[in-house]
Amino acid sequence: MLETADLTKKITKKEYQNMMADLQIKLGELQRRAKQMDMPVTLVFEGWGAAGKGVLLNEFIQALDPRGFSVYPMGNPTEAEALDPYLRRYWLRIPPKGRMAIFDQSWYRRVLKDRVEKLIVEGTWRKAYYEINSFERQLTDDGHVLLKFFLHISKAEQKKRLKKIAQNAVTAWRVTDSDWRQHKQYAAYLEAVEEMIEKTDTHYAPWIFVEAQDKDFAIVKVYKKVIEALENKISQLGRQKGPKNRCLPAEGESIPVNAAILANIDLTKTVSKKIYKAELAGLQARMRELAYILYHRKMPLIIVYEGWDAAGKGSNIKRLTQTMDPRGYKVIPVSAPNEVERAQHYLWRFWREMPPAGKIAIFDRSWYGRVLVERVERFCSEEEWKRAYREINEMEEQLIAAGAIVLKFWLHIDQAEQLRRFEERSSVPHKQWKITGEDWRNREQWGQYQLAVEEMIFRTSTTYAPWTIVEGNSKYYARIKVLKTVIEAIEKAL
Amino acid sequence: MLETADLTKKITKKEYQNMMADLQIKLGELQRRAKQMDMPVTLVFEGWGAAGKGVLLNEFIQALDPRGFSVYPMGNPTEAEALDPYLRRYWLRIPPKGRMAIFDQSWYRRVLKDRVEKLIVEGTWRKAYYEINSFERQLTDDGHVLLKFFLHISKAEQKKRLKKIAQNAVTAWRVTDSDWRQHKQYAAYLEAVEEMIEKTDTHYAPWIFVEAQDKDFAIVKVYKKVIEALENKISQLGRQKGPKNRCLPAEGESIPVNAAILANIDLTKTVSKKIYKAELAGLQARMRELAYILYHRKMPLIIVYEGWDAAGKGSNIKRLTQTMDPRGYKVIPVSAPNEVERAQHYLWRFWREMPPAGKIAIFDRSWYGRVLVERVERFCSEEEWKRAYREINEMEEQLIAAGAIVLKFWLHIDQAEQLRRFEERSSVPHKQWKITGEDWRNREQWGQYQLAVEEMIFRTSTTYAPWTIVEGNSKYYARIKVLKTVIEAIEKAL
Repeated sequence: MLETADLTKKITKKEYQNMMADLQIKLGELQRRAKQMDMPVTLVFEGWGAAGKGVLLNEFIQALDPRGFSVYPMGNPTEAEALDPYLRRYWLRIPPKGRMAIFDQSWYRRVLKDRVEKLIVEGTWRKAYYEINSFERQLTDDGHVLLKFFLHISKAEQKKRLKKIAQNAVTAWRVTDSDWRQHKQYAAYLEAVEEMIEKTDTHYAPWIFVEAQDKDFAIVKVYKKVIEALENKISQLGRQKGPKNRCLPAEGESIPVNAAILANIDLTKTVSKKIYKAELAGLQARMRELAYILYHRKMPLIIVYEGWDAAGKGSNIKRLTQTMDPRGYKVIPVSAPNEVERAQHYLWRFWREMPPAGKIAIFDRSWYGRVLVERVERFCSEEEWKRAYREINEMEEQLIAAGAIVLKFWLHIDQAEQLRRFEERSSVPHKQWKITGEDWRNREQWGQYQLAVEEMIFRTSTTYAPWTIVEGNSKYYARIKVLKTVIEAIEKAL
Repeated sequence: MLETADLTKKITKKEYQNMMADLQIKLGELQRRAKQMDMPVTLVFEGWGAAGKGVLLNEFIQALDPRGFSVYPMGNPTEAEALDPYLRRYWLRIPPKGRMAIFDQSWYRRVLKDRVEKLIVEGTWRKAYYEINSFERQLTDDGHVLLKFFLHISKAEQKKRLKKIAQNAVTAWRVTDSDWRQHKQYAAYLEAVEEMIEKTDTHYAPWIFVEAQDKDFAIVKVYKKVIEALENKISQLGRQKGPKNRCLPAEGESIPVNAAILANIDLTKTVSKKIYKAELAGLQARMRELAYILYHRKMPLIIVYEGWDAAGKGSNIKRLTQTMDPRGYKVIPVSAPNEVERAQHYLWRFWREMPPAGKIAIFDRSWYGRVLVERVERFCSEEEWKRAYREINEMEEQLIAAGAIVLKFWLHIDQAEQLRRFEERSSVPHKQWKITGEDWRNREQWGQYQLAVEEMIFRTSTTYAPWTIVEGNSKYYARIKVLKTVIEAIEKAL
C-alpha cells in the first residue's frame, strides 16, 4: 500500500500562506469550542525518522491556545515504566475533558520499533494490537476524538535528510545510531507500518496517511484533517439532543445473569476465637514473608476489596497487613472522584494507583464502583456501566499480562447482620464516625445493589481474575479466608 | 550527645498492651480531627539500618484510617530525579490539607548517606542544611505539623540484628552491602547524625530522639509524641479565633520599597517593522539551535512571563517558540488553582511543572501570582503574601543550584495602551474571546497592582534570578528584547 503512495504531492509557498492564516483561525476556534464542550482530543504522530515531525508539530501548535494542550514526546520507557503494564504510561497522559494531548510517538512502539528491532517476542507485539484497539475504543467510547497520523517519506528522501542533519555541526548529534538502524531496515519497518495500519485503522480511531516529502503540503493536510474531525464531532454532539443518562431497567426486570450467586452463599460459616487466634499469627507471618519475596522478585500484587457497608473490609485489611512491611504495600481507599479525576476516563485514577513492580496495592473499594454505586445511584449512564464490564476485564487482563497477580474479594453479609453492625456503630462512641446517613440510605436499596453485585460477579469473574466471595457474617472466618486465599494465590504464582 | 543516650529504656509486654489500646483510639480520633481541620501532617523517620523502622511504622499506621495517610519509602533517586533540584521529589509528596505523609528516609539523605559515603562534595551537603531548613519552614508556615524521628540503636545492637536477618534464608537478601558499609562507618554516621540534629532541630520542625533498642518502648514513644503534637496544634488553632485574612494596607500607605521602578520605564522604545522582520528570523534560528544545545547538555531553562493584561505575553511566547522543537519546550499557562492544587502549599503545583534536565518550561504567569493577583484580590492573607517573597527566592535559588537558568520578564505597558488593546480585542470577531469582564475589573485596580508589581520586582530581583522589565508598548520591540535576553543568558551560561 505505502509503496504506491504519491509522494510528489506539494503546494506552492503562496498557496500555503493563503491557506494557513484561515486554517489557524479556524483551528483556534474549534479548540475553544471543543473546550467548551468538554471534549478531550488526542492526536498521535508516528512516522519515519527525519520525516519532519518536529517542525510540523511546532507549526501545528502555533494555532492553539497553550492553555489547552500538552505535547508528549514518548521516548524510551524508564526502568520503572518498562516493568509497568505496557499502556500505563500512556493512560497517565490522556487528556482530561476539554484538553488536547499530542503524542510524538506513542503506544504504537510495540508494533514498530520493539517489533522490528526484536526487543520483544512475537507473542507480545501480536497481543499489542488487541491491547491498543481496546485502549483506543475505551477512550473514544468515553468521548475522545482520536486521530493518528503517519508521516511518510521514501527511503531515498530519508537518507538525504539524515545526511544533511549529520553534516551540520550543531545538529549532528541528533542523528543517532538508532536512526541509521531504522534507515537500513526501511523495508522491515515498512512491512510493520503496513500491518499496523491494517490492524488498527478503526472507524473510531482512524489512521491518516500524510505525504511528508513536501513539508508545507503535510502541514496543511494535518490542519485540514484535525479541523474536519473536530467539526464532525461537534456537529454529531449537537445532534444528540435529549438526556444522556437513560434509565435503569426497573428492579425485577429480568437480567441475563444467574441471579442466585449470593443467595447460595453459606453465611453460617464461622471459626471459633480459639482457632482464629491460633491460625492468625502463622498466616500473618507467612504473608509478611511472601510480601518480601514478591518485592524481591519484582512481582506486583493487586487486591480488590468490595462488599456491603459494614461487611468488615477495614478490619479485614488490617489483619492482612498487620505484620507486613509498610514500605511494601499501600492501602488505597476509593471514594468519590475529585475534580481532576472527574475530568478523566473513570479508569484513569486507578491506572495511576497501580503498584510498581514488587509492591502490593490493596484497594478498599475500586474500579468496580462503576458497576455498583455509580450504576445504582445513576451517576453514570446505562451505556457507560454496561460498557464497563468489558473495559474492566481488559484492564485486568493487561495487568496480569504485565506480571501482576490480581485478587478480588466480595465481602458478603446478610441484611440482618448489617443492621446489627450499624446499630453497634451508632452506640459505641469511638465508632460513631464510621456510620453516616449515606449508609442507611444505601441499605434501603439493598435489592438494587444485590442485582448489581450479581451481574458484576457474573461478568467479571474471568479465568485470569476470578472473584472470591467471602462469607463475612463471621469476621474471624472472613479474615482467615482472605489471608489463606491470598497466600495460596501468591504461592501458586511463585 | 547520642553516646550518652540511655538505650536501656524498655517497657514490659503488659504495660505495652495496656497503653496501646488507648493510644490507638486516641491517635485515630486525632487523625479524624486533623482531617476536619484541614491540617497536613508530615512525619519523618530516620534511623540506623535494622533499627526496626519497618515494624515500628506498621504498628503506627494500624491506628490510622487508611483514607488519610500515605507512606513514602524514599530509596535512591531515579536517574531523572537525580538531575532535578534536590528537594523536588519530596515536594511532590508533601501531604495535601487534612492528610498525613509518612516518610521512611527523607530529605536528610544529603547530610547522612550522601555526606558520609562522599557521594557529593562538602559544599553541597553544607548547603543542604539551609535548603532543608527553608523547606521545613515553608511547610510549617503553611500550617503543616512536621515531626522528625531518629531511631537510635548502638553499634553492637546493630551488628547483632544485621547478623540475625542475614542468617535467615528468607530475609538474608534484605541485608545489603550498603547496610554493612553503614555499620563499619558507624562512628562517621554518628557524627553526621549529631550535626544534622544540631543544625536542623528547629522549634517548627523538631527532632525526636527514639531509643529503639526496645521495640515496644519505641512504638509507645512515637505514638505519644505524635499525639502530643497533634493535640498542641489543634488547641493552638482553636485559640486563633478571628478572621485569618487581615487587610491590606490602604493604597497610598507607604511601603518600604522604591515605588518608582515602573515610572522610569521608557515606553516609547520601539523598532520598525522592517528591522523587526530582518532581526526576527535570525534570532529565532539561534534560539532553535540553543534549545537543542541545552537539551544536549541537559541544562533546564525556566522562563517566567508576567505582565499587565493585554501586555502581549501570548504573542511574545509564540515568537520565542515559533521555530523551536516542540519536544523540547512546554508552555505552562497558569490560572486559578484547581481543587487538588488548592489543598497544597501554593508552590507545590509549580514544583510539579519544573522542567526535567535539558527541557525548557515557559510559564505564562507563574508563582508570582501569590504576590500579585492573590495579594490584590485578597485571595491570601497579608502574612501569606509577605512570606512569599522569601519563599520564592528560596525556590529559585534551589532551581539554579540544580543547574537551571531562570529568567523572569515583566511585560510592561501603560494604561492608555492597555485600553487601546482592550478595545481592539472587543471589536475584532476572532479576538473577542480574549477579553472578559475580569480584564476590565482588573484594570480598575491598576494602582493596587502597580504597588504589588513594584514590591515584587524590588524583593525578588536577586543576583541569581533578576527581573527583566520589557518595554511593551511596541510589541515588536518587546519580542526582540525577550529573544535577545534569552539568547544572551543561555550563551553566558554555556
